[in-house]
Amino acid sequence: MSVSSCTQIVLAARPNGPVRETDFRLESAPVAEPAEGEVQLQVRYLSLDPYMRGRMDDRKSYAPPVPLGQPMEGEAVAQVTASRHPAYAVGDILLARTGWRTHATLPAAGLRKLDPALAPITTGLGVLGMPGFTAYSGLRFIGKPKAGETVVVAAASGPVGSLVGQLAQIQGARAVGIAGGADKCAYVRDELGFDAVVDHRAADFPARLAAACPDGVDVYFENVGGAVWQAVLPLLNKYARVPVCGLIAQYDDGASGKDGPDRLPATMREVLSRSLTLRGFINFEFAQHFPDFLQEVGAAVASGRISYREDIVDGLENAPRAFMGLLKGANFGKLLVRVS
Amino acid sequence: MSVSSCTQIVLAARPNGPVRETDFRLESAPVAEPAEGEVQLQVRYLSLDPYMRGRMDDRKSYAPPVPLGQPMEGEAVAQVTASRHPAYAVGDILLARTGWRTHATLPAAGLRKLDPALAPITTGLGVLGMPGFTAYSGLRFIGKPKAGETVVVAAASGPVGSLVGQLAQIQGARAVGIAGGADKCAYVRDELGFDAVVDHRAADFPARLAAACPDGVDVYFENVGGAVWQAVLPLLNKYARVPVCGLIAQYDDGASGKDGPDRLPATMREVLSRSLTLRGFINFEFAQHFPDFLQEVGAAVASGRISYREDIVDGLENAPRAFMGLLKGANFGKLLVRVS
Repeated sequence: MSVSSCTQIVLAARPNGPVRETDFRLESAPVAEPAEGEVQLQVRYLSLDPYMRGRMDDRKSYAPPVPLGQPMEGEAVAQVTASRHPAYAVGDILLARTGWRTHATLPAAGLRKLDPALAPITTGLGVLGMPGFTAYSGLRFIGKPKAGETVVVAAASGPVGSLVGQLAQIQGARAVGIAGGADKCAYVRDELGFDAVVDHRAADFPARLAAACPDGVDVYFENVGGAVWQAVLPLLNKYARVPVCGLIAQYDDGASGKDGPDRLPATMREVLSRSLTLRGFINFEFAQHFPDFLQEVGAAVASGRISYREDIVDGLENAPRAFMGLLKGANFGKLLVRVS
Repeated sequence: MSVSSCTQIVLAARPNGPVRETDFRLESAPVAEPAEGEVQLQVRYLSLDPYMRGRMDDRKSYAPPVPLGQPMEGEAVAQVTASRHPAYAVGDILLARTGWRTHATLPAAGLRKLDPALAPITTGLGVLGMPGFTAYSGLRFIGKPKAGETVVVAAASGPVGSLVGQLAQIQGARAVGIAGGADKCAYVRDELGFDAVVDHRAADFPARLAAACPDGVDVYFENVGGAVWQAVLPLLNKYARVPVCGLIAQYDDGASGKDGPDRLPATMREVLSRSLTLRGFINFEFAQHFPDFLQEVGAAVASGRISYREDIVDGLENAPRAFMGLLKGANFGKLLVRVS
């Protein structure tokens, strides 16, 4: 079952503003036979996530950029096609950072076996994977909602936001979601069971958000930035906590400043006058708590107490378009590409 | 010794941009005889502090604004001239929120006796008072510098900044001060003993600051905002902490946004990519730790391990001009008005 070539999608150009299809290129590439300690993998599902936008730019961030001409980075659920490592056998299902490829040969370090009997394998990329752990760790170690407090999260139908709200409710807090469009709002309210949901496309979105948070906001889980932040800021209570895990609304802005007015002074004034905490984080920081997360949230998913939703696109060749949609909020649930 | 009238300075107009002398008015006012449980006080020293600028504006903050026509708020060292409370005798020296007045009659709640034998009474308004406690609590509970880390603070010759740097050094961190002009810089370097000092008036201030922080910045104690923040931001290390206790550079900006570019998106991007913590605070939040502060810092002041400097202006009538100078950095050390 081992192969000698694969299909991959490389970064063809760095985006200048919004990502375009021409920023990517589909090509064939060789795949090595595994050396001692390596495995060869066939990708089953590729995860598409907002952080990938940052890797396309050539600027300093928490991880280096993808080099031009190299495969886009990404995590996948993959199946072993050849193994020279005793822990992995042909047919095993693993989580692996394969990148946007149909096949990859990788060293065993960094692989993690999934048990298909415990949960659907796709959950390893969503509710029981990095997006879920981002929600869990940001809420547990930064947001720290108390019973009766109000937690607001945007992209509430997505893999991070949907778990933030559900975990907040389990901790006795009130969950208010922000989502785009009637379908997503209905899902957040009716299927996820958030206490309230507000459509950010509504013309009077700030007023609706304020009405949905009559006691103000104690935790705002920031994953979008931009206009949503401007609507949340006046609602933040004294000592509110803002875990910042993403800023999808501004990923296309480039390195230069946006046109004015300069909103920084007013933001800092609120940070001061209401003793706010703004805290950026990447889930890696809390990696030691991943096993706790897997156990707690895994059990809640298995029992049905926590719901999740996936949006699956077929074919690696459709990854660029699906990714462009993700940055515009076109997906509905955790976005995955079924590669094989 | 009790009196029936006093001189006071009231808020005559709310500033529109920079504070002007016409925003204040000197006038006579009656002073009541103390009722049961009250004391009458003669002010010895009035403290002038940047936070007072915020109280002059009619906008929501952590404390209500000073009403037009009412005395400016403020803390003072004062002497009891008449007492109807058993804990206070005529001649006692107290800390009291008298406002900008020569005399005041106040209830005993909120008064604190000073022991002139332990430290000069003026220190109760500076290094052993609210400014000192702001430095202590922001550093201890938010900045949390570790040995070998770099702590940067602006207004380093002032009462907050000077203590931030000295406490950071006691905890084994490297202290880098920012001050305006050669005299203040020399004081910070030579008398306070900071590891480095940078003049924010230098044309190449950002480059000098970067050179003074070869290992980046782990704690930036924010008390100014504006251009200094812009120079510090690129130097912040991963997981850097930013206690925000003041924004003196932007107090005159008013409620509306400044002209662009909009610096907020770039700031939030750094918060995210370097897992920064921005945390506003008012020292009241940590009031339970005030006795520890007084004991620790009091001992270090008494032993001479911690230095401080005062800038004393004579006469209540000169308070407005001195306060306007404070907002421009014209004072050199803790600014006090000797009232009597």
